[in-house]
Amino acid sequence: MRCEIVAVGTEILLGQIVDTNSAWISERLAEAGIDCHLQTVVGDNPERMSKTFEAALGRAEALIITGGLGPTQDDLTREVVAELMGVELERDEQIVEKIRDRFANRGRTMPENNLKQADIPVGALPIPEMPGTAAGLICPIGEEKVIYVVPGVPIEMKQMLEGTVIPDLVSRSGIKSVISSRVLKTWGHSESGLAEDLAEEIKRLDGDGELTLAFQASGIEGVKVRITAKASDKEKSDLLLDAEEEVLRELIGEYIFAIDNETMESVVLGLLKSQSLTFATAESLTGGMIGTRLTDIPGSSDSYIGSVVTYEAGLKSSLLNVPKDISYVGQEAVEAMALGVCEVLGADVSVAVTGVAGPSPHEGEEVGTVWMASSIKGEVESFKVVFPFDRSQIRQFTVITVLNALRKRLESRK
Amino acid sequence: MRCEIVAVGTEILLGQIVDTNSAWISERLAEAGIDCHLQTVVGDNPERMSKTFEAALGRAEALIITGGLGPTQDDLTREVVAELMGVELERDEQIVEKIRDRFANRGRTMPENNLKQADIPVGALPIPEMPGTAAGLICPIGEEKVIYVVPGVPIEMKQMLEGTVIPDLVSRSGIKSVISSRVLKTWGHSESGLAEDLAEEIKRLDGDGELTLAFQASGIEGVKVRITAKASDKEKSDLLLDAEEEVLRELIGEYIFAIDNETMESVVLGLLKSQSLTFATAESLTGGMIGTRLTDIPGSSDSYIGSVVTYEAGLKSSLLNVPKDISYVGQEAVEAMALGVCEVLGADVSVAVTGVAGPSPHEGEEVGTVWMASSIKGEVESFKVVFPFDRSQIRQFTVITVLNALRKRLESRK
Repeated sequence: MRCEIVAVGTEILLGQIVDTNSAWISERLAEAGIDCHLQTVVGDNPERMSKTFEAALGRAEALIITGGLGPTQDDLTREVVAELMGVELERDEQIVEKIRDRFANRGRTMPENNLKQADIPVGALPIPEMPGTAAGLICPIGEEKVIYVVPGVPIEMKQMLEGTVIPDLVSRSGIKSVISSRVLKTWGHSESGLAEDLAEEIKRLDGDGELTLAFQASGIEGVKVRITAKASDKEKSDLLLDAEEEVLRELIGEYIFAIDNETMESVVLGLLKSQSLTFATAESLTGGMIGTRLTDIPGSSDSYIGSVVTYEAGLKSSLLNVPKDISYVGQEAVEAMALGVCEVLGADVSVAVTGVAGPSPHEGEEVGTVWMASSIKGEVESFKVVFPFDRSQIRQFTVITVLNALRKRLESRK
Repeated sequence: MRCEIVAVGTEILLGQIVDTNSAWISERLAEAGIDCHLQTVVGDNPERMSKTFEAALGRAEALIITGGLGPTQDDLTREVVAELMGVELERDEQIVEKIRDRFANRGRTMPENNLKQADIPVGALPIPEMPGTAAGLICPIGEEKVIYVVPGVPIEMKQMLEGTVIPDLVSRSGIKSVISSRVLKTWGHSESGLAEDLAEEIKRLDGDGELTLAFQASGIEGVKVRITAKASDKEKSDLLLDAEEEVLRELIGEYIFAIDNETMESVVLGLLKSQSLTFATAESLTGGMIGTRLTDIPGSSDSYIGSVVTYEAGLKSSLLNVPKDISYVGQEAVEAMALGVCEVLGADVSVAVTGVAGPSPHEGEEVGTVWMASSIKGEVESFKVVFPFDRSQIRQFTVITVLNALRKRLESRK
């Protein structure tokens, strides 16, 4: 089963936005064992769209089209696909109702031109998931081939892919073997360093056909090691994954902080909850980013109680009782912040950060200098890092580095 | 002059990396006035590469290929392009020297297989810029057409594009006209609503050839309206943009909050600075996200001093003097937070938010209910919104909505 991806949108061809959808879809296809040999981006031009779709269907059995489903005159995917199917567009009353609902829920009246989004090719099947006002479609092309049409809005596209498109493709392709994968997330070692530590193991697996390892450097998400297993059923492939994870933990376990959808934040919050500890943060250069990432996780309020962001240096003294006559970018200051925020907010555990995100040096410290501390029941530990990065990266690496330090301390208390 | 872009790399087709090169190149082409009608991604497979390149050259006069220039067996772009040109590969001694230099500079010995990178099609012209070990190439195809081959490493690709490829394309195309564009960022109106408000204007411009309008819904960045102008020189195209912006401000000015690279945060910080006001935030459901976005902007410390994040409801009373016997998700609470944070942190201006991000209702309020307030020199204003979104979107829309409310108040003080 071969599947191609076409992203529709002049804004992509003009470089105004980067098409991240195609990479995301490709990854899902690869996981499902479906070949994808070509991705194309085409503008909102019916003639070129038509040629592109037709050429793709000449090479592959399935085509996923993203974009061109909006309510404006530019949005032509429905029309062009109908023409390829050799049918007319017809208004779908169920989709009309859904669109009206979306507007009603937001307390807005629906502009009439939004009804264009309910005109679908005769014979096309609407995809049940419909988080926005654009309906996804399954469009049979003759007896053998199929076009899936989904919106370009990533959140809507992803729901439709996971809920309907990928399962439908897998069932059409008659794939019998199961491919499973597991991602081990690591922090604190380079990609090439991990590759060296795992060189023997990669050699051992090479050519066995059942298990493969792949690395992916993911910036502030660390370096991911993906184990992929192929077997006749899910139970067997899961057993392969379990065994291989054990081998890898022997070799690089000290760097692994999370599995699959876990994040540094979710792991830290899980440890805090299991140890019945409340948690607060004192932030300076990160401006609230540690709290933002923690509270992005539903249920974070079980442990996380709040934060004091002392962006102006003087607030460190007035709000967190940091002594006034010391450097605010230093060990004494960061430890006082960690202890101070526990006291002021009434928390068991805290982390604190203070440093220089740039663009200019500050208090005599160079850009990238960050002091970090964690406090657990009044016991404080701290360290300094100098990041050779830009402002945005310094802030992001600070968040994950200080949370990783706390994670290690909490792990060792278990 | 039409130019297509092909990115070569199985890792892109597997979704392991996102192809950001094509968007970057497209933007440069659009700026230079060169049409780009199609982008393609193809894997490291010589047959499919060849078909893809040939098809592109069938539609366009120029082709830019990124990737497949490394030293490994997978890297086949040189071979495939030589075949299309109908010539052999030949070792280029000047490139050999450059590659040896690169290794010597890093104090490493050159692996022999790196010399493969010096084998270029007979008749191809090396691109002078060569920051890495891969040489870019200008490859004439017959009398009329041309292929540019550049590495996939973004920093190397960009140097070659800016230094050689774009100037060469412009000179070949004989282009005299200049294309400029300006983005007006709007908040508070739907894409279809804006399209309705601007329908007459779009009709007026249609076919004039000098000016076009396009919409782009960008989630929490609002809806962008892009004006594109074409003229004989930059001065004239800028005048066209100025005139059209004025027309659009008459029609939809109330929704426009920023231009081009400005953001809601940068506009608010600019207004605060020009009015010499200090700024603090009191956050609850956003967990620090307002502060994070503000402090992402270099120079935010000119106005922004800090934040109190009261994620646990009780902290609203103990830290911000919110009365204890009221609902923490309500008008009285949010106004007390806004006033309290100004008092405690010593700020002139503040915003405060309290609400229910979900997943469950809280204090009897449904998920998505958010109270927002802004305070300027002790004068507080507040309002309630019920967002029909998920947790992450509720938090993000809260940030931009409350900042937009403050922006309007600051604008009206000017």
